[in-house]
Amino acid sequence: MTKKKTPPLSTPEETGPLDSLLHPPVSWWAREIRPVEEGFDTAIRYRLDHLTKPLGSLGRIEEVAFWYSRLHGSDRPPAPKGFCAVFAADHGVVAEGISAYPQSVTLQMVRNYLAGGAAISVLSQIHGFTLRIVDVGVNGDLGTHPALLHRKVRNGTRNFAVEPAMLPAEGLQAMEAGMELAVQASESGCSLLLTGEMGIGNTTAASALAAALLRHPPEDLTGSGAGLPPEGRLRKIRVIDQALARYRPLLASPLDWLFAVGGLEIAALAGFIIGGAVRRIPVILDGFITGAAALAAVTLIPEVRPWLLASHMSQEPGHRRILEHLGLSPLLSLDLRLGEGSGAALAYPLVVSSVELYNRMATFEEARVSQAGEG
Amino acid sequence: MTKKKTPPLSTPEETGPLDSLLHPPVSWWAREIRPVEEGFDTAIRYRLDHLTKPLGSLGRIEEVAFWYSRLHGSDRPPAPKGFCAVFAADHGVVAEGISAYPQSVTLQMVRNYLAGGAAISVLSQIHGFTLRIVDVGVNGDLGTHPALLHRKVRNGTRNFAVEPAMLPAEGLQAMEAGMELAVQASESGCSLLLTGEMGIGNTTAASALAAALLRHPPEDLTGSGAGLPPEGRLRKIRVIDQALARYRPLLASPLDWLFAVGGLEIAALAGFIIGGAVRRIPVILDGFITGAAALAAVTLIPEVRPWLLASHMSQEPGHRRILEHLGLSPLLSLDLRLGEGSGAALAYPLVVSSVELYNRMATFEEARVSQAGEG
Repeated sequence: MTKKKTPPLSTPEETGPLDSLLHPPVSWWAREIRPVEEGFDTAIRYRLDHLTKPLGSLGRIEEVAFWYSRLHGSDRPPAPKGFCAVFAADHGVVAEGISAYPQSVTLQMVRNYLAGGAAISVLSQIHGFTLRIVDVGVNGDLGTHPALLHRKVRNGTRNFAVEPAMLPAEGLQAMEAGMELAVQASESGCSLLLTGEMGIGNTTAASALAAALLRHPPEDLTGSGAGLPPEGRLRKIRVIDQALARYRPLLASPLDWLFAVGGLEIAALAGFIIGGAVRRIPVILDGFITGAAALAAVTLIPEVRPWLLASHMSQEPGHRRILEHLGLSPLLSLDLRLGEGSGAALAYPLVVSSVELYNRMATFEEARVSQAGEG
Repeated sequence: MTKKKTPPLSTPEETGPLDSLLHPPVSWWAREIRPVEEGFDTAIRYRLDHLTKPLGSLGRIEEVAFWYSRLHGSDRPPAPKGFCAVFAADHGVVAEGISAYPQSVTLQMVRNYLAGGAAISVLSQIHGFTLRIVDVGVNGDLGTHPALLHRKVRNGTRNFAVEPAMLPAEGLQAMEAGMELAVQASESGCSLLLTGEMGIGNTTAASALAAALLRHPPEDLTGSGAGLPPEGRLRKIRVIDQALARYRPLLASPLDWLFAVGGLEIAALAGFIIGGAVRRIPVILDGFITGAAALAAVTLIPEVRPWLLASHMSQEPGHRRILEHLGLSPLLSLDLRLGEGSGAALAYPLVVSSVELYNRMATFEEARVSQAGEG
């Protein structure tokens, strides 16, 4: 551990979840989140129950419509207009040999997003949601592009096997970039956030963060990432185990952990997700990485939780634990493990379907259809 | 059993699956189905494995792209263009009190489809697939509408608790209406069929048909339909049990069973599904009713099986048994039990996503992205 570079860490005695709130801007954000509007719950349920279909026969589609409508504080909510932010950053921990791909792939894939050749680009084109790529820490220079935002904090995190990944000021700067994107989405009239990320090495950061916040053995939360062989996975677990053992006596608040073992894109995602709750826009999570960011966001500010929808259950073993802890049940189970926001984007048309069915179907009365039990 | 109205039934000695094929037009259709094209399998797999994503990381999305591409006999298949046929008919067996809704709801709901107020109408509008409603046996008169086809065989089936539901000539006429729609879809350039149905009482017919074809106790295959109370479900099971016991000594071929206990819309769906295989267009199944029709189609002509995709797992208990028997794994599990084609329509954007990702994503080479293991 290079002592010189180590940020001033809080000690267990002086920290805890509440202490995280002493960090501006997180404390300001927490105060800005108003409670979820419950005044339309009865009206929304009434409409759902009187649309021309047997009671409850649209199953989870009805739940999604209810979730979206109440968060928009209306029994006739706006049509979904999606805004996907993909935060990209590199990870110093790749020096430990924990990824199947070389670090340069982060930069190459961001270029691929901008050129329209990646999964998230294609899904944005065919389903018509806005796509913004945010460089919060890619190790390399990207040119200019209308869909690209330059918010680079530094060229990737430090290697958390050696020293904390970020200084608090760096982590907070990344979170503010996330918040900025939620504000942009809100000001452009979007009504639904989709979360995405790119960062070679970031399943290692997400597993470490989840293990720290859930106080669960890393072995159960660590998978093969983008395609690590079994011995690589064991190395990944060892790196996380050692880092957690080293930081545990020094760290206690969730924000400390986010900055010590997380990533710049994970911090930005946490800011973006909190931004959804602040700007009152529902959020579709993607897979394991955005799940870890959501776990950090909800651990910091529990009022964020109602704003979240889980798009899918990833192949990464840590994802299930995170969703269980957050009490989120995924819409899809398609054995995805790509990231980028691809799971959120695949679930997006289901959310659109849910809201449009709710808004546009006729009621029994309007359509003059008899109800159950009427002879 | 009103002997006068009973159609001439084949006896067990002279029937069997093969004998069904002696019925024109089923025998002609069976001969028209060419084997699935396997010549592009290697090229499709190669492209899937070289798109800019970790190997296999799109999970079932990749399976769907493979399924669709090989059925279209191409490694660059056409963009999906969906055609949904909703077959509607009434059921004489409603006289036994086996439905939560009055029979008039079939007619009322078809009017609702045409007016644009039903779930399938809204899904057709927002996802842009063609929707055709086919009256093969609604008990009542429908006006004219550009999306409505009049192919009424009779005003609903006979009550199968008393006598066989259809004469063979009636059942075959309904099947031919289904085949006609597959031909229409093909001639209008559509590349994907979506199956739908409406018919008060048709879960009773589907449960009876599934029990007969799977040789499984009706109790395990019979649910609450559109919202039957528990005592209603017991009555439904009793009606099916008694009918199967009565017909079993007289019937053996799957076609006999389809006509004796099925429905006009179920026979039409079987024809439509067979039509997919004949015209070489992949088919997305909906829920329990279309599953029972697919079971009949595959039992008659096993070569139909590869053309099918299961959209979702319904709440009806018989659906799981049918999908297991057919070896189909559903894409969605959202506790749907609406029918109409709504599950197929909710899965449609996932199929579109799969094919567009496959067709439009860049390869590693095109995007100059390093692959796993490259340093």
